[in-house]
Amino acid sequence: MRTVRLKLVTIIAEALLQDRLLDDIKRLGARGYSVGDVSGEGSRGVRASDWEGRNVRIESVVSAPVADAILEHLSARYFPSFAVIAWVADVDVARGDKYV
Amino acid sequence: MRTVRLKLVTIIAEALLQDRLLDDIKRLGARGYSVGDVSGEGSRGVRASDWEGRNVRIESVVSAPVADAILEHLSARYFPSFAVIAWVADVDVARGDKYV
Amino acid sequence: MRTVRLKLVTIIAEALLQDRLLDDIKRLGARGYSVGDVSGEGSRGVRASDWEGRNVRIESVVSAPVADAILEHLSARYFPSFAVIAWVADVDVARGDKYV
Repeated sequence: MRTVRLKLVTIIAEALLQDRLLDDIKRLGARGYSVGDVSGEGSRGVRASDWEGRNVRIESVVSAPVADAILEHLSARYFPSFAVIAWVADVDVARGDKYV
Repeated sequence: MRTVRLKLVTIIAEALLQDRLLDDIKRLGARGYSVGDVSGEGSRGVRASDWEGRNVRIESVVSAPVADAILEHLSARYFPSFAVIAWVADVDVARGDKYV
Repeated sequence: MRTVRLKLVTIIAEALLQDRLLDDIKRLGARGYSVGDVSGEGSRGVRASDWEGRNVRIESVVSAPVADAILEHLSARYFPSFAVIAWVADVDVARGDKYV
């Protein structure tokens, strides 16, 4: 099977941020996304404040430059003020042209 | 820890396709799977039709040949007609013999 | 974007084991986690007993040594007696210092 290597970006954030985050990642180039509900715990915010409770788990398959732009944006606009974490992984997809 | 490198296949599809997809991946060699609910948005179908709404997120750890067979099958039977996306990632598992 | 390569540990287990598993991974070094609900099917337990039904999907981004410690612990304490599966993947994160 011929596949294309792309990036899977996963973002965990408080549910209140969902619409804003989805707008942002679409503007930065994401062509689609999935959102699931998760609960969680961690110390990721400013002043190491704990967060605990209902969160959303957003994932989107994007090109490497878009993944980078999303991480840059999260770092600049969300990490200083909000309990948001994100990671990027390599994935192989069929129909790679649909994602870029 | 001694681990084995296998493939994690993730499939996002409309909820109506769940049973059919699970039957398919089991027939192609998947020994287990997990299913979660997600919502989403994207343009992945034939004629670039948009999909939006309740979807399922299926994931299964399989051997590389089974991952390939699943992607081939999705490409042939689902991608032309349904809003289905899928990706494959490398994962390391303990007890690798349980998956193949 | 400057990122750090870490490990994403994903654990699928029966819901009854959730609190115990979360206590364990925190004790072993996980600084945060997310939990989602999934259903599933597989043959992973002792005596190849089937499991089917409500499960939790726990994920946590950790250092490589912590990922290894978690897999070792699961192998020793859970795999022989419970329907638990787990896998580890490479992920790139911003703010890598928050996870270790």
